[in-house]
Amino acid sequence: MKKLINDPKNVVEEMIEGYVKAYPDYVKQLPENKRAIVTTRKTREGKVGILIGGGSGHEPAFMGYVGEGMADGVAVGNIFASPSPEPILAVTKAIDKGAGVVYLYGNYAGDVMNFGMAAEMAELDEDICVGTAITTDDVASAPKEEKGKRRGIAGEFFVWKAAGAAADFGYNLDEVVRVAKKANENIRSMGVGLTPCSLPQTGKPSFEIGDDEMEIGLGHHGEPGIEKGPLKPADEVADRLVNEILEDIEIEEGDKVAVLVNGLGSTPYMELFIMFRRVEKLLSERGIKIYRSYVGNYITSLEMGGCSITLMKLDEELEKMIDHPVNTPMFVQK
Amino acid sequence: MKKLINDPKNVVEEMIEGYVKAYPDYVKQLPENKRAIVTTRKTREGKVGILIGGGSGHEPAFMGYVGEGMADGVAVGNIFASPSPEPILAVTKAIDKGAGVVYLYGNYAGDVMNFGMAAEMAELDEDICVGTAITTDDVASAPKEEKGKRRGIAGEFFVWKAAGAAADFGYNLDEVVRVAKKANENIRSMGVGLTPCSLPQTGKPSFEIGDDEMEIGLGHHGEPGIEKGPLKPADEVADRLVNEILEDIEIEEGDKVAVLVNGLGSTPYMELFIMFRRVEKLLSERGIKIYRSYVGNYITSLEMGGCSITLMKLDEELEKMIDHPVNTPMFVQK
Repeated sequence: MKKLINDPKNVVEEMIEGYVKAYPDYVKQLPENKRAIVTTRKTREGKVGILIGGGSGHEPAFMGYVGEGMADGVAVGNIFASPSPEPILAVTKAIDKGAGVVYLYGNYAGDVMNFGMAAEMAELDEDICVGTAITTDDVASAPKEEKGKRRGIAGEFFVWKAAGAAADFGYNLDEVVRVAKKANENIRSMGVGLTPCSLPQTGKPSFEIGDDEMEIGLGHHGEPGIEKGPLKPADEVADRLVNEILEDIEIEEGDKVAVLVNGLGSTPYMELFIMFRRVEKLLSERGIKIYRSYVGNYITSLEMGGCSITLMKLDEELEKMIDHPVNTPMFVQK
Repeated sequence: MKKLINDPKNVVEEMIEGYVKAYPDYVKQLPENKRAIVTTRKTREGKVGILIGGGSGHEPAFMGYVGEGMADGVAVGNIFASPSPEPILAVTKAIDKGAGVVYLYGNYAGDVMNFGMAAEMAELDEDICVGTAITTDDVASAPKEEKGKRRGIAGEFFVWKAAGAAADFGYNLDEVVRVAKKANENIRSMGVGLTPCSLPQTGKPSFEIGDDEMEIGLGHHGEPGIEKGPLKPADEVADRLVNEILEDIEIEEGDKVAVLVNGLGSTPYMELFIMFRRVEKLLSERGIKIYRSYVGNYITSLEMGGCSITLMKLDEELEKMIDHPVNTPMFVQK
């Protein structure tokens, strides 16, 4: 696949350089580690730090969300690979304001290992308290009884949003972790893949799929889904995704949800809105109220085609977190 | 190409329906014309109305930018086709607050005809004053001496931004038109196409290109560019685009610019940031200061691959317009 890049070996470094040059009033690289990106905004002493991260290729995640009301820093990995503990630790030290740092990441073996190692180093060597909340929102990736084994996909956006708000409200480390875990407990996502992406260094497609096929439940790195078959009309695909989600979490008439229809990279907004149209119809038929909607490319997989749907069941506390303003280079909410 | 749609005949109607359902606190369809989208926010009496529009397929443009500080209403056409005069007139009547309405659109024959007819109808039949500013930013589409014949591409975003701010500041109709035209005089854009999109109804690619080729100067609907050849590294492509722009408009050491690196639909953010990195380097070498940067999918062409670069030369007045806050579903600036 054709790419507007220079040497494939340098894509991550050049991307970060471009990003930081584009938004110097929001973010900077730490001199000690170029994969460590932190906010340039003044952060209140005593605020819990929010550290997010993961592999590259998911832009605008993760580094796009560093600013006010969301993340204070990001550790950037190679494409579709966890960051190593060094940038995680560097960010931790930079954003700790005396109240500790919360690590938010998706449930992938590499991330669990590297963030885990960094947390140990921060606590033992730097005397910084670290809390952790792992996102496990992908309904397709493990059965209901084993939610803790599920992958984290686009629903992670809501975990960052909730935890970022809680930290802004002055919650302490344990409370921010509680809110992040509560957010994760209340989100469910499921995706559909239409076309693969390719990694700059190999040029190979991230998964195999026929010209007239879709894959339900596909992961963000091309992990196998639960069913491959002929591409169906958008309404049928939305029905399938929403119904799988609603079978997994009890959301009843009168409940409120936040909805995220997330494009994987090359899916036109037109198609995302057509998908949202059906999601809204299905929820409205069940008397479920949409409290806030997010439609767009929030967490992508390079130029992968397809989308995911996330529902977050809300209560008063989560509504307050979702309403809280955010100001970052790639996402602003008033 | 695979698409998440239902009946191709209904894509525009279903997309609008989804969009309006997603952001009911920002936008609504007019009951008299479903292609007429207007803000639901309270607008001050005496404010000049800003009406933008054009064909579908460029999402989040145009309807994504209805709200505070940018457009008050949008007329939506079929895919890559101008809206007819009826929705333009319906929006005009709905958003006129006694101070007239300014039409902002790109220089395409269909838009010029339909917006022109609507302007006549508004003035003759409805007694509403209409001002017009047409965007002509695509350097590749006509020689420097014939700037007025050029196509409008992604630079239009800056025209909306400037005119929306001027209207918010209480400028009168003539003054808003003056600012919009001044913005257009000070923007230059140039794009590169890598892969075509396909129209839902025909399934045919929007232009022909080889597997290892790029096309410099390609238009937003697949209009021919100025050179087709082998895909070059990102830095060389950025050099070419920026140099063509700087040969067309005098921007000197010490001048300030706003920069937009706009993705055409399927180009990963990673590549847009790599392009921005080089743009920043080139400008910084010449002593040109980047006042604000915008990197992302602002005006797309369905799933077309490639991007465009826009520079807007700033003076004090245009800086003020660019700084003004915006709050719309698809673009928020604090």
